Amino acid sequence: MKIAVLGATGYTGLELVRLLAQHPELELTAVTSDSQADVQIADVYPHLTDIVPHVLERVEAERIAEVADVALTALPAGLSREIVPSLLQAGLRVIDLAGDHRLPSDLYAEWYKKTPPADDLLASAVYGLPELYAAEIANAQLVANPGCYPTATLLSLVPLMQNGWIDPATLIVDGKSGVTGAGKAMHPSIHFAEVNENFKAYKVGAHQHTPEIERILTRESRTGKEVTMTFTTHLVPMNRGILTTSYANLTVEQTTDDLLALYADFYRDAPFVRVHPVGRYPQTRDVSASNYCDIGLHVDPRTRRVTVLAAIDNLVKGAAGQAVQNVNILAGIDQTTGLRSVPVYL
Amino acid sequence: MKIAVLGATGYTGLELVRLLAQHPELELTAVTSDSQADVQIADVYPHLTDIVPHVLERVEAERIAEVADVALTALPAGLSREIVPSLLQAGLRVIDLAGDHRLPSDLYAEWYKKTPPADDLLASAVYGLPELYAAEIANAQLVANPGCYPTATLLSLVPLMQNGWIDPATLIVDGKSGVTGAGKAMHPSIHFAEVNENFKAYKVGAHQHTPEIERILTRESRTGKEVTMTFTTHLVPMNRGILTTSYANLTVEQTTDDLLALYADFYRDAPFVRVHPVGRYPQTRDVSASNYCDIGLHVDPRTRRVTVLAAIDNLVKGAAGQAVQNVNILAGIDQTTGLRSVPVYL
Amino acid sequence: MKIAVLGATGYTGLELVRLLAQHPELELTAVTSDSQADVQIADVYPHLTDIVPHVLERVEAERIAEVADVALTALPAGLSREIVPSLLQAGLRVIDLAGDHRLPSDLYAEWYKKTPPADDLLASAVYGLPELYAAEIANAQLVANPGCYPTATLLSLVPLMQNGWIDPATLIVDGKSGVTGAGKAMHPSIHFAEVNENFKAYKVGAHQHTPEIERILTRESRTGKEVTMTFTTHLVPMNRGILTTSYANLTVEQTTDDLLALYADFYRDAPFVRVHPVGRYPQTRDVSASNYCDIGLHVDPRTRRVTVLAAIDNLVKGAAGQAVQNVNILAGIDQTTGLRSVPVYL
Amino acid sequence: MKIAVLGATGYTGLELVRLLAQHPELELTAVTSDSQADVQIADVYPHLTDIVPHVLERVEAERIAEVADVALTALPAGLSREIVPSLLQAGLRVIDLAGDHRLPSDLYAEWYKKTPPADDLLASAVYGLPELYAAEIANAQLVANPGCYPTATLLSLVPLMQNGWIDPATLIVDGKSGVTGAGKAMHPSIHFAEVNENFKAYKVGAHQHTPEIERILTRESRTGKEVTMTFTTHLVPMNRGILTTSYANLTVEQTTDDLLALYADFYRDAPFVRVHPVGRYPQTRDVSASNYCDIGLHVDPRTRRVTVLAAIDNLVKGAAGQAVQNVNILAGIDQTTGLRSVPVYL
Repeated sequence: MKIAVLGATGYTGLELVRLLAQHPELELTAVTSDSQADVQIADVYPHLTDIVPHVLERVEAERIAEVADVALTALPAGLSREIVPSLLQAGLRVIDLAGDHRLPSDLYAEWYKKTPPADDLLASAVYGLPELYAAEIANAQLVANPGCYPTATLLSLVPLMQNGWIDPATLIVDGKSGVTGAGKAMHPSIHFAEVNENFKAYKVGAHQHTPEIERILTRESRTGKEVTMTFTTHLVPMNRGILTTSYANLTVEQTTDDLLALYADFYRDAPFVRVHPVGRYPQTRDVSASNYCDIGLHVDPRTRRVTVLAAIDNLVKGAAGQAVQNVNILAGIDQTTGLRSVPVYL
Repeated sequence: MKIAVLGATGYTGLELVRLLAQHPELELTAVTSDSQADVQIADVYPHLTDIVPHVLERVEAERIAEVADVALTALPAGLSREIVPSLLQAGLRVIDLAGDHRLPSDLYAEWYKKTPPADDLLASAVYGLPELYAAEIANAQLVANPGCYPTATLLSLVPLMQNGWIDPATLIVDGKSGVTGAGKAMHPSIHFAEVNENFKAYKVGAHQHTPEIERILTRESRTGKEVTMTFTTHLVPMNRGILTTSYANLTVEQTTDDLLALYADFYRDAPFVRVHPVGRYPQTRDVSASNYCDIGLHVDPRTRRVTVLAAIDNLVKGAAGQAVQNVNILAGIDQTTGLRSVPVYL
Repeated sequence: MKIAVLGATGYTGLELVRLLAQHPELELTAVTSDSQADVQIADVYPHLTDIVPHVLERVEAERIAEVADVALTALPAGLSREIVPSLLQAGLRVIDLAGDHRLPSDLYAEWYKKTPPADDLLASAVYGLPELYAAEIANAQLVANPGCYPTATLLSLVPLMQNGWIDPATLIVDGKSGVTGAGKAMHPSIHFAEVNENFKAYKVGAHQHTPEIERILTRESRTGKEVTMTFTTHLVPMNRGILTTSYANLTVEQTTDDLLALYADFYRDAPFVRVHPVGRYPQTRDVSASNYCDIGLHVDPRTRRVTVLAAIDNLVKGAAGQAVQNVNILAGIDQTTGLRSVPVYL
Repeated sequence: MKIAVLGATGYTGLELVRLLAQHPELELTAVTSDSQADVQIADVYPHLTDIVPHVLERVEAERIAEVADVALTALPAGLSREIVPSLLQAGLRVIDLAGDHRLPSDLYAEWYKKTPPADDLLASAVYGLPELYAAEIANAQLVANPGCYPTATLLSLVPLMQNGWIDPATLIVDGKSGVTGAGKAMHPSIHFAEVNENFKAYKVGAHQHTPEIERILTRESRTGKEVTMTFTTHLVPMNRGILTTSYANLTVEQTTDDLLALYADFYRDAPFVRVHPVGRYPQTRDVSASNYCDIGLHVDPRTRRVTVLAAIDNLVKGAAGQAVQNVNILAGIDQTTGLRSVPVYL
């Protein structure tokens, strides 16, 4: 299967290039960058010297459809929605890594402050979380690749939601992300000297991943009631990695062991989810540069509240790795193909 | 007033030395280190060359009482409780920066897994949070200097607790700390390569600051009911700084503005607490190397929950700076004396 | 003495504000920023809340001369030279922290690729390295504050140059700097994710501090011959600090001890230069947020070459601290006034 | 070919495990750790969960010879030499990643301050730098895998030495390394808070890699004269990566272009050496987690001196990757097998 990466010089695009360049069954056939078209990508990123020979191209749907079967759009939110319809029309299957096709139009307009895509396109988009929706993904023309925080949060909470073991009204998610999650665009807040030796919250009460998480949790909830949660995101002075700490009141008498057994069973066929034993908790470096999501949890007998911790690499399982996993599913090959590299622990 | 620092070569001790060396009215007269006695402290820490001429001494209560009026004990929990009684007996006033005198004996035994100090000593110890207890501190023989997380958390929540504006049963505190909070003792988890580019939770459900926070919140609660909360601590790859994110359900209809007005009023005479306006949130570098505690908050109209963020420097307002503030109170001088340095933002 | 800081929102300007806000004898009376005029500086940098009440102003020489005696220009190279003449004309004494007045016009044009200031102005500027030129500084109208690398390199090498103990033709300086040395201007190379976990050289063979160092070394050389050296600069993933490693062949039979004795004598009246004993070498954190320059050296008996290591804080002794030291000299007060704070080791 | 990793829980051992676990033609059959024997390695390092099922064993030569063809010893210097003879005697081929078999016995004793291995063993050891000695490596029983600094330095300088284009008497190498180069052993100097936001030199004039570099340079020198150089090593606050900056006086009139052409030719068959064009210089992140060595250089017309910059990942090309490259050569397979992963740029 032949793959084009649109927006290849951003951080997510670059990670797609890294994964596809070493993928044994997918072939990278085009990389685009409107701002640096006609330049060899290895001249922009010398680490790709001798590895990726491609020249960056302008985005043009017809041309891409000639050389590729699937287009991966790693473009900023708002830009993605402008190009996706023409890609689909040209016959490409599309995996959109931007946030443009993950929400109904009203929520998109409210949280992204942008004009939403057409409703029928949104209705056709499959939410690309393979641990939940692999069957739908396999047949999709348009996959909305999940956001980084939603991936970690949903994998943390869906087993409990589906079983009704937590009270959705008590849900609080405290997320922490490395800096690549903010992308490559320059603004003063990502100057090295501003981020380094600093820790802060950002987009308090306003993060656009909030409705994405709520929507899927509502869909997966036993009760069907709308889930509304408190979600706070923080910036960690490191490049890669997300850790989410999720809190909810239990509705049942279950123990830490009971919950871990539930998770182990829920993810028994999910090759990238690793559930830790009692007393062991995930850390971001355990999944660095890999597609794993590590989960650990603790039931506090004092408060009858559960704390669920999940770690992913925001650029891999939170973006590019998940997209490749989705391409594997589209291609009908083992979903771990090209994604089995060992985490770069150090 | 003459001051002795016990345990001067640990990170908290070193910060006490830094603050006292530039204090205009307190005189540093003795520094101790059992493991490096008889060595000049500037030979252990060359940054003190030409600034601090003192030679490290073994801890000996009688000798310290000869040269100092107040002893600051920056010793590991468990060691502090062994030496404090003899310091008091020798006529010294003591500010204990360890956790040994902050809890009733049963809670100390349960959370610290150590033999507690004598009950009458614990009963006599004043909890050294000057924003709440300055009057008691002024007359204390033994001040239990608060822990770093409790300082940030209590300053975040006491205005709401005293006014009964939040439901204590819904309280969740998600704390994040730089590495110096773990002290200087060597163990693999604080190797540079383990901490750098990593983010993780630690002591999940078991942090010894939990009962310290709960105890003071219970004391300050309007209802008098026991406060039990969920508290999770995380390690940030940076040296200094704590950010706490505290969550609670509101019991009132108040807005973000209302809460900020409450805080501004509550802290109007507290020179080290800075309450941010709507939409601005604290970050650790804004208080770095200073004694400030910056607070910001947000009421989410969707969930009727408040998120309170507070930032301190764990070594200053979270330890050594607060101790110097307490000494100033003991000495009857302005509590900001020697603590007015500008945060080292970069 | 009243002081104005021009370019107060850059990193060097901000450090000037920090030092002046806590200076006991100098008064900060104006802060300028053309891009953020009429805004309170504490609204741009909330860490200054309750500390610095000033509102940012546009640069206007007459207005500044009304409120200040000395103007400190922390502007980009090229901008500084445009405003300095009018400041002088308005009767202000000026300390220029940019590189505009440190070189003869031909070298300035060659290395800075900008139009140089007028020759008579350049001729009148005093090079503001107080350890060498305190007497001239005291009477100067215009002080050219040294660059960060030149400060560390010159303090490392002048004792040997003055005594003719090294062969200037063999001089190699390998410099390493934290990121604040590059200033606050945004370009992709200072994105957190580009700098973090990376080490690289920059401006190889082309750093504009090269002729500044060579010029002063030539002036201080016993032989009077032009000094030409190899100078390479590297970017360290940290905020503050410069370490220079300087290499030269010895022309004499002297040992490490002999050289250290020479340095100790040379700097006996220099309060900010600390010479380490044999076998101890400087590190950047030993001088962090302070005005010290720490020096250590080693004579290798195998090669008869000396390696001199020097550490400074690039924002303090390498920029703002040195400027304040120069203002102290202008003001006729002890040059350490307001600069005695203890290094922030952690 | 079956491979055993001795000392699998150190940082180099762990990197060997990472590379071998994803190697398509080598099989990892045993991992040892005397201190943690009988524990599953994934319980010590949870990032290996579901990937490496091996249980750690005590080192026992006979047992290892039963399950493996080649032993990779990633043990501390001094320990390696104790076990290597028994491994060879048991019929294993050995690649020693420690420094024990790289020097003649007198130099080993002088620089390592340890008892050297037997002279005949040292004489039989092949220096495992494949770019120079692939033919000898192919037939070796014992390969001395080069040190991290020597790898970068030798690849930087051998083309010039072989051609006599530089004066060996003027050679100065200024090296900078991430912290994993120091290994996993605990001592205060690698505490996160000591390394972070700090830059320093270490082992000034005394680094044990000095004679290793000099010995190979002497062997490769056109003149045959003993090379003696000045070598200074510095610690960079990052996990991975070495950058070396090497300086030497040219003996010829050649330009930067001429030298780059020489290098391009010299390394035309070396798949892991990438020579940058004029004006582009290596940085450590361009080779991170990969086996590449990137080289750039500049001839300064002012001083007729060349500056050569080289970047490697100290754990890969500087240790484990080079060892795997050597095993590939022993096995008679393409030397890039299992080593073609794309650098993890971010």
